[in-house]
Amino acid sequence: MDTKNRQWLLASRPRGAVEESNFRLVETPVPALQDGQLLVRVHYLSLDPYMRGRMDEAKSYAAAQAIGDVMVGGTVGEVVESRNARFARGDLVVGMGGWQELHVSDGKGLTKVSRALPESLCLGAVGMPGVTAWYGLLEIARPKAGETVVVSAASGAVGSVVGQLAKLRGCRAVGIAGGPAQCEHVVRDLGFDACVDYKAEGFREALEAATPSGIDVVFENVGGRILDASLRRMNAFGRVALCGLIAGYDGQDISLKNVRSILVNRLLVQGFIVSDHLAKWPEATKELFALVADGKLRYRETVAQGLESAPRAFIGQLRGENVGKQLVKVAT
Amino acid sequence: MDTKNRQWLLASRPRGAVEESNFRLVETPVPALQDGQLLVRVHYLSLDPYMRGRMDEAKSYAAAQAIGDVMVGGTVGEVVESRNARFARGDLVVGMGGWQELHVSDGKGLTKVSRALPESLCLGAVGMPGVTAWYGLLEIARPKAGETVVVSAASGAVGSVVGQLAKLRGCRAVGIAGGPAQCEHVVRDLGFDACVDYKAEGFREALEAATPSGIDVVFENVGGRILDASLRRMNAFGRVALCGLIAGYDGQDISLKNVRSILVNRLLVQGFIVSDHLAKWPEATKELFALVADGKLRYRETVAQGLESAPRAFIGQLRGENVGKQLVKVAT
Repeated sequence: MDTKNRQWLLASRPRGAVEESNFRLVETPVPALQDGQLLVRVHYLSLDPYMRGRMDEAKSYAAAQAIGDVMVGGTVGEVVESRNARFARGDLVVGMGGWQELHVSDGKGLTKVSRALPESLCLGAVGMPGVTAWYGLLEIARPKAGETVVVSAASGAVGSVVGQLAKLRGCRAVGIAGGPAQCEHVVRDLGFDACVDYKAEGFREALEAATPSGIDVVFENVGGRILDASLRRMNAFGRVALCGLIAGYDGQDISLKNVRSILVNRLLVQGFIVSDHLAKWPEATKELFALVADGKLRYRETVAQGLESAPRAFIGQLRGENVGKQLVKVAT
Repeated sequence: MDTKNRQWLLASRPRGAVEESNFRLVETPVPALQDGQLLVRVHYLSLDPYMRGRMDEAKSYAAAQAIGDVMVGGTVGEVVESRNARFARGDLVVGMGGWQELHVSDGKGLTKVSRALPESLCLGAVGMPGVTAWYGLLEIARPKAGETVVVSAASGAVGSVVGQLAKLRGCRAVGIAGGPAQCEHVVRDLGFDACVDYKAEGFREALEAATPSGIDVVFENVGGRILDASLRRMNAFGRVALCGLIAGYDGQDISLKNVRSILVNRLLVQGFIVSDHLAKWPEATKELFALVADGKLRYRETVAQGLESAPRAFIGQLRGENVGKQLVKVAT
């Protein structure tokens, strides 16, 4: 029986870049379960850029985290005790357990998942990031075979799936990522046609060379000058699925200069959040699961060891240091 | 028989704001008609912001005008001579006759129009500007009853129709226009619920006050800080029909700062050009014609007298001096 829990709380709001001092690790007793509740031991915690937005005063779609709250986060873990008829001890469950070793739940928002694939995939290619890629690409941008699809943050959990789904639909997939190692991974391991290093000199020229027929679809995770560079290359009737604006998380300027391209090229630009589209989840995860099982959808994980490593790993992710899905291994 | 024609040619490309010296008035002989051709005497010339784009080096959707070409422009006029079986002397026709008194046509792109309404309406509320309003509002932005629709350049030929169509669909219509006289016209004559003066101090606060339930739809003709102010007020799942970027015609900065609103509010932003959607023209003009005939769609015209006044009138229009549809009366 687990009697002690460890939790990362939001200690203070970042001023600019996130620092480790914005978090506080505490040890708390596990409360006794009430009727209908269950206790989950977290195996993996997912780290995702959206968490940065929750650390600020509310200006994002979701409510801000209160100071002193357990940091929000997706988790996969095992039911260790249950007074809820829907869940039994030993069930593997995905939910929003947060940055902690144990979480008490009433079962709402908790989903039992299969053990047929590595369980961390429920937080990556077959979880929220994968469904985000699937929805934004296929339901918003709707690429046609032969079109050129550009995705920024291409080596991340979402971007890596976007490019591979585009390839599977017969498109030219071009990634944008930071640094030669990331770009090499995107092309060699993930099978993109090209990847452009946004940190290198001559980024715009390199993007131009990588998109000889222009760009039909942009799956945007970054914004700012990265998106501006893509807008310069858009073909008529192109689509931009706006999934994230990582470039502006710490308050940097993410103004768009090439607004004229939206008019002149009659572009569709659409912001979206995958949680608005839960009805599509089963269809998306079914396809993603099958693709991973068949070896047609490759993925990479960066796994930080132990709950205590979460803030450091999160800060690294915001700097673009991870490759693929960023996880924290909390327990096994 | 007309033997002499007068034409405004593009003399030079503007550097910044358009000047009268960018145009040159010439007198030319009327060529003898060949088989299949007809000669039209222009009654009204339409002046429209898109012409500004044509004066620059090609960067717009359409080819640039060559230096020395007759300025492009929509016209309504009467067939005075015909060697084309589809048109007879006396027919009233709408087409792209250009800035001139007479134009020779092979009939392509020329449409016979009824004399049931004042003929200038074929260039305004029941012509290209009206169809632009209709298409952008109803096919792209798709407002629902009770929603708030904001339109910039609200006293212009397009904006005035947008707001009235929105009112007819049960929406709250809020205009943005320049100066108290224009704003008064928009509210009192056109029946908008409110109109905000973008030239006045406290523009953003006034827009906020005029949109107490936020903004669901923006029909954007201007861009830059005007669009940024609207983006601040958007409700979730709002739509922005991007029709024009007048603010940037002379090379001014039209960067967008509130890009985050597109993501956070899951907005759809779509650029469009009415000429991509000719299939919708009959449906649109049918509704617009009926609304004008029934007195449900009001319109205002600013009419400059004589072909020689065209450059001055066009420059005034780019400065926002006209109210409603800007026309040049060339002949009767």
